[in-house]
This record gives sequence, C-alpha cells and structure tokens, in this order.
Amino acid sequence: MTKKIEVPYKIYLDENEIPTTWYNVRADMKIKPAPLLHPGTLKPLTFEEMRPIFCDELIRQELDNDTRFIEIPEPIQEFYKMYRPSPLTHAVFLEKALDTPAHIFYKFEGNNTSGSHKLNSAIAQAYYAKEQGLKGVTTETGAGQWGTALSMACSYFGLDCKVYMVKVSYEQKPFRREVMRTYGANVTPSPSMDTEVGRRINAEHPGTTGSLGCAISEAVEVATSLEGYRYELGSVLNQVVLHQSIIGMETKTACDKYGIKPDIIIGCAGGGSNLGGLIAPFMGEKLRGEADYRIIAVEPVSCPSLTRGRYAYDFADTGKVCPMAKMYTLGHDFIPSPNHAGGLRYHGMSPVLSQLYHDGFMEARSVEQTAVFEAAETFARVEGILPAPESAHAIRAAMDEALKCRETGEEKTIIFGLTGTGYFDLKAYESFNNGTMSDYIPTDEDLARGFASIPDLGL
Amino acid sequence: MTKKIEVPYKIYLDENEIPTTWYNVRADMKIKPAPLLHPGTLKPLTFEEMRPIFCDELIRQELDNDTRFIEIPEPIQEFYKMYRPSPLTHAVFLEKALDTPAHIFYKFEGNNTSGSHKLNSAIAQAYYAKEQGLKGVTTETGAGQWGTALSMACSYFGLDCKVYMVKVSYEQKPFRREVMRTYGANVTPSPSMDTEVGRRINAEHPGTTGSLGCAISEAVEVATSLEGYRYELGSVLNQVVLHQSIIGMETKTACDKYGIKPDIIIGCAGGGSNLGGLIAPFMGEKLRGEADYRIIAVEPVSCPSLTRGRYAYDFADTGKVCPMAKMYTLGHDFIPSPNHAGGLRYHGMSPVLSQLYHDGFMEARSVEQTAVFEAAETFARVEGILPAPESAHAIRAAMDEALKCRETGEEKTIIFGLTGTGYFDLKAYESFNNGTMSDYIPTDEDLARGFASIPDLGL
Repeated sequence: MTKKIEVPYKIYLDENEIPTTWYNVRADMKIKPAPLLHPGTLKPLTFEEMRPIFCDELIRQELDNDTRFIEIPEPIQEFYKMYRPSPLTHAVFLEKALDTPAHIFYKFEGNNTSGSHKLNSAIAQAYYAKEQGLKGVTTETGAGQWGTALSMACSYFGLDCKVYMVKVSYEQKPFRREVMRTYGANVTPSPSMDTEVGRRINAEHPGTTGSLGCAISEAVEVATSLEGYRYELGSVLNQVVLHQSIIGMETKTACDKYGIKPDIIIGCAGGGSNLGGLIAPFMGEKLRGEADYRIIAVEPVSCPSLTRGRYAYDFADTGKVCPMAKMYTLGHDFIPSPNHAGGLRYHGMSPVLSQLYHDGFMEARSVEQTAVFEAAETFARVEGILPAPESAHAIRAAMDEALKCRETGEEKTIIFGLTGTGYFDLKAYESFNNGTMSDYIPTDEDLARGFASIPDLGL
Repeated sequence: MTKKIEVPYKIYLDENEIPTTWYNVRADMKIKPAPLLHPGTLKPLTFEEMRPIFCDELIRQELDNDTRFIEIPEPIQEFYKMYRPSPLTHAVFLEKALDTPAHIFYKFEGNNTSGSHKLNSAIAQAYYAKEQGLKGVTTETGAGQWGTALSMACSYFGLDCKVYMVKVSYEQKPFRREVMRTYGANVTPSPSMDTEVGRRINAEHPGTTGSLGCAISEAVEVATSLEGYRYELGSVLNQVVLHQSIIGMETKTACDKYGIKPDIIIGCAGGGSNLGGLIAPFMGEKLRGEADYRIIAVEPVSCPSLTRGRYAYDFADTGKVCPMAKMYTLGHDFIPSPNHAGGLRYHGMSPVLSQLYHDGFMEARSVEQTAVFEAAETFARVEGILPAPESAHAIRAAMDEALKCRETGEEKTIIFGLTGTGYFDLKAYESFNNGTMSDYIPTDEDLARGFASIPDLGL
C-alpha cells in the first residue's frame, strides 16, 4: 500500500505542540450569533440573570464574542494531556477500499473512557465549578456520553456530580450508568420523585419512561435549589463550542506541520459542539478571507434541523426551563421517530453554527440511517474502529465526497471528525446486522407539528 | 504537577521507529520450553502431525526455538500501523494519587475496537492463513476479546471466520457478538448442533450453557473437517507469545529512546501471551546476563496456576482434543469459581512462561478480585481509562509496588501492561459498585480435585 501524501498514518502532535488556547470563532464573525433571551422578558439574558444556573466564568465565556484566543487554564491543559492529543489519522485503508484519488483524514476523539469528544468541555466546566468553590454540579444525560464525560471530570476535581438520566436509557443502558457510578457520580432515573417537576410529571404521566427535556428540567431545578451547585450542559452553548475548539486547534496544527490543506471539512451535527469545535480555526480563516474551505454539517434525515428547520428563537429544551436561543430548529416539541438509532436527536442547533449556516459559510446535508450504518460497517472493517452512529454520519458524507472524486479524478483532501466509538450502541448495530433497521423521513405534516411549538415572539 | 522524569506523558514512537521484527525469547533460553506432545503417542508433535489443525507457517514459528528476531511480514506491519504504536504512558496522575516516589509507566493496548492486545496475534494468524490460500479459520471465544480480534483480522484479509462462542456468553454478552458480526464473522453459540461433539454434549447435558473446553472441541472439529480451514488460538502457544512481543519491542524502543530503565515489569497472566510479549526483549537481556529486571506475573487467587499449580504435562483444553503441554496447571478439569468476574480463568499457562518461572527468572503473585477492582476504580478515576478486569490485576500489583516505594522512599521505575478496556465488563463493575462482589480462595481440596485430572505420564 503506497501512501499518497508523505505524512504518517497517525499524526500525534508532540506534547509541546499541543495548543494552549481555545479558538473563539465568534471573534471572527461580522454578524454575531444572536444572544440568549430571558423567556419572561424576551430581553438578552444578563450575566446576573444567568448566575443562579451557570458558573460565573462559563457565563463570561458564553457572552464573550470578541476574544479570539482564550487561554486554557493550566489544570485543564494537564488533564487534556491524559487523553490528548487525539490522532489525526490518514485513512489510507478507506481510500484503498473506495479506490479514490481523494486524501481522507479523520480526527478521532474516541480514545478516552467517555468514548467521545464530550470530555473536552466536561473538564473545562468542572474546572470552573471547582474554581468558583462549588460543591457540585448537575446535568442530564440521554444516551450517556455527556453524563459519563462529566462524571469523569468531576471525579478528577473532587466535585459531586448528579446526573439525571432519561429513565428508558437508565434501564436499557446499564453499562453507561455503571461507568458513571464507577466515577462516583450519583445517577438518578428521570423523571424521579426527588424534584417538584419530576413528581408532577410522574403524577401526570404514570409509568413514563422520561425524556431529555424532563431530565433537563430536573437537573436545573436541583442546581438552583441546592446551595453550592450549578447546572452544566454538554452541547449547543457558545461556551461548549469554544471548549471543543481544542479539536480544531490540534487539527490545524497537525495540518500546518505536514502541509495538509483540506478542501472539505465534515462533521456530524446534533447540538453542533463537535462540528463547531473542529472547524473553529479553519472557519476563522474563511471568515477573514484568508483561506477557503467547504464545510459540511451532516445530520440525520429524521431530525433535519439545518436542512429543513426554521431559523428562529425557540426554547433550548422541551421543558421550557432553559433560555431561548436563536437557531435552526424543528420546534422544541419535535421528537424524532423512535426508529432513529443514533444520537443527533436534538431539535435545535448551536446558535454559532446556525448563524454561520444562515450567512452561507457552511453547507448542510442530511443522510438516511441505513446508509449511515453501511458506511459505519465499511469504515469499521477497513479502519479498525467501530464508530459511534453519530460519527458515522460524517463518515457517510466523507465517503460520498471521496466517491465523487473517484468519478472526477480530483485529488481533494477531506478531513472529517470521528467523534467517538460505538461500543455502547450495539443495539443499533444489531438491528442493522439483522436487516431490521429502516429509514424514516418526516413528512411536511410531521414537521408542521413541530414548527407549531416555535413561539411567535414578533422579533 | 511536576513530572519526575523528563519524558512525555504519552510516548508514541514515530512511524519509522516501530519495530519490524518480533522477538523470540526462546532463542535466549538455555532450557527450552518443553515440546507439545501428541496425546496418543506421548511423543513431541511433528510438523506433519500439526498440519491438519494449524497453518504451516504458524507451526514453523511454534517449533522455532532458535531464531531471535523474526521479521514481521510487510502486510502485518501495515495493519499494525492502523492501531499501533500503542502509547507508553507515564502514570503521573496515579503517582500523585499514591504519593509515591516510584516512576510508573504503562503500555496501553486497548486503543483498538477489539479492546485488547489480542489483535496483535490475530492479524498475524489471519495473514498466514491467507498466505496459505485457505478459505477461512475457526476459533472459540469465551468473553469475546479473542473472537472479536480474529473477526477484525479475517475481515481485513477477506477470510471466513467461524467463532464458537460459549453459549452463556453468547446470550449474556450480545454486544461482543454484534461487534463480531459487524466484522462479518459467523458466530455460533456452543455447544451447537453443527458438530458431532456439540450434538453429543447437548444430548448428554440438555440445556447446558457451554464451556470454553467444549467450544474449542467444536472449533477444532470444524477446522479439521472442512476443506481449506484451520483452527487458530489466542493465547498459550509459543507462536502467540512471539506475535505479542510487538508490545515488548515497542516498550523497549521507547525506554531506550528516553533513557527509562525499568526495575520491575508487571503483567497479568491468564494464558500468558500478554506478559510473555511485554517482557520478551527484557527477558532476553536478563537471560543473557546483560541486565536485571524483576518480572512479576499476576494472577487471580481464584485461578492460581503459577502460585499454586503443578508443573506437569496436561491437556491444553478441558475437552482433551488439543495437544498436551508442559506447564503450570491446576488440572484441565479445574473450573474457577463462578464468582470470579474477570478473565484469567485458564487452568494452565504458556509453556514459555512456565519454564522461565520454573527456572527462577520471574516471580508470580496472586491477588483477590475485590482488591483488583479497588485498584481498577482508582486507576479509572485518576488516569481516565476504565481498565479490563484482567488488566487491573497488573494495576493492583503495580500500585502495591509503588506503595512499598512510598514506605522505603525508593524511586523505582515500574512498567506494567494495560492490556485492554473494560467496556464490555460492566456487569463486574456493577457488582463491585453495588458491594456484592466477593473473593474466593480455592481450598486445598478444591485444588486436589483439579490436580486429579492431570494425567500421570510417567515422564
């Protein structure tokens, strides 16, 4: 097998090359992402209004649209060294399997026990909570990746971590729950009887198996009612996109070191933190007119926020306890078909990415899940990594672009984000292996029902 | 956190530093491991006698006690680049947690989808089967690590892979099964109705949930009765120890590059392939009198082949279809207590390691499983990797040695093998987290029952 570019199969930056700053892409945006609104006053949320919910320093990062490089505090840099740098891998085996002249690279974030990129922001959020002298934090988790990451981060800093886990996941994904418990987290199935909102929902819907919206409501209630606690969120927010920029900073450093010039950068997009992080410094160059890249967000056809959603203010959560964000949204009442196996089920999208998409700086496409799992299986077999279903959306798009290169003969360079591993998603693989997986494309009527929940603010 | 030795946290060898040969430690042994015996004739098995079962080139490696460096074929080197080099990590977070002056390093083999070091030998065995023009291979798997690794390797070379999986694991570990199926393997619960031995066992023991011994018997029967198939085994054999020496070769190269001089090298020992591979070049130096290292094999108290077993010829499998090997053994009828959670359940031990232990070149110790899981949890929390229960035996011993250094003030350098991740072992972690895990030390009577199955060959 001859390598087409003279770079190693796997690029691991040396320790002294690991970036020491995050990249705040908002600094390069002429049109800034719209601010979060207070759902009562419909006015931009102030620092003081956010303080009961979020840590002070995280609010500052949330509101900072101007500082391009933000120093990563030393203790977070130390922790990053535990599992970073992540490899930028030249996918020579995939290139060969596709018989494509394209050069394909992927940045793999799955080499840590949380199994995904979520740890990059979890450790930052835990650090700022610790610095503020808090006792602990609360959060919600669905499939469990974010909850696991935050549990690991809190364990490192000796913080209490209360995770409200959607009841159906708590029961069906006991392994994720045990990883969190091994890291000392307190994991409660949601809705619980510990909170007012939980008791109300249990009374109204006896036997309910829960929802992410409900788990968020419980986590926020506990954070705001317990002394010394705050709530932390794993995606969507500006601060999370900021922390995830470590992915893009490492990727850019590796590219510059080896003279790799990507033509296309691809990432899956649920809440948008992974893609936002991967592209940050590249998008910065693009916004400043210094370079051009095609940037592609990939989402499932069953939850097409960017490709079929509306750009509007909406509640960030189903339970309407969180602030309102201007974003591409399917409506906070939209619930993707249960036959949808992977993650990426969020009804909205990061305000940063939404604004960039709205302004034409990136593309979006949606892919069907059987095609995604076909790509996942091909990738697993030739590259030796069983990908998370979420990540496999990016693989699908990267393979499609590489196959186009085979048609045209173009030697394009494609970089995609491989956010994590699929070890805890084997139910979905089983359904694919058994041939029982199907696709689901929401009808216009399905979407209309979701859109009906988008509030009309007259803005 | 100040680092105590000026080396990176994680040493990744450059691509051009990756070893291109395996290290055959038998070449340095004055007393060679005893040969495998034909169970009928009690004479050393010849090349011709092994041919119906094993691939030709693998038999040559099995019998080669003289060639120190064996070239790794180019296609295997290519595959190794997919997931190697594995990091040699300076455990600074663990050192800090233990407040020890010791320098602790671990060689982590879990960064691939099979989740363990097993892939190092699987790809070699699949390659030689392909080179010989075979259609496929058969094997057995218990917990599933070896079956997963061989499935990945066979998928890469386009070989059929028939895995006989112990029925109770097949049913209780569906995720492992799905990973194998995703790699295209044919996974059959054992005992099956496909083989003569399977039908007999099902008739004699209706409703049996199977055993590794039975799965081996089925896999061997299929390999020897199907045209173009051979049987492959994931541990114990000399050839497997040879392939696993890539672990030790990389470790030695990294140590030499950064001036790390280990005082103690530690590995868990089930069949012995991981430890045998890790220590190979170090043991070579020791055998040649060029350096001295303390080398420690760690096994569970519930399955203490080295620490309480007998050094004798015994059947390599419960079903007595395999050749006889001279090794430390508890008797092929010995079955560890079911309360034992991790792997390392094998009644015997690699003949290479057995001979080295017998001749005083290495130590052995046994540890209790609750102590092992305590170590696993500490390690997971500070180093960010959830270890396999097997690997955690080595962690326990490494921590104990580091704690001794705290007492004595000695700055010893300890290297241990972290063979894999525990993502598919969360049932065991759950039992530990719930406080329901217990220890089990076999009584002398328990052992006597196992010893009774060791044949008296009058040798």
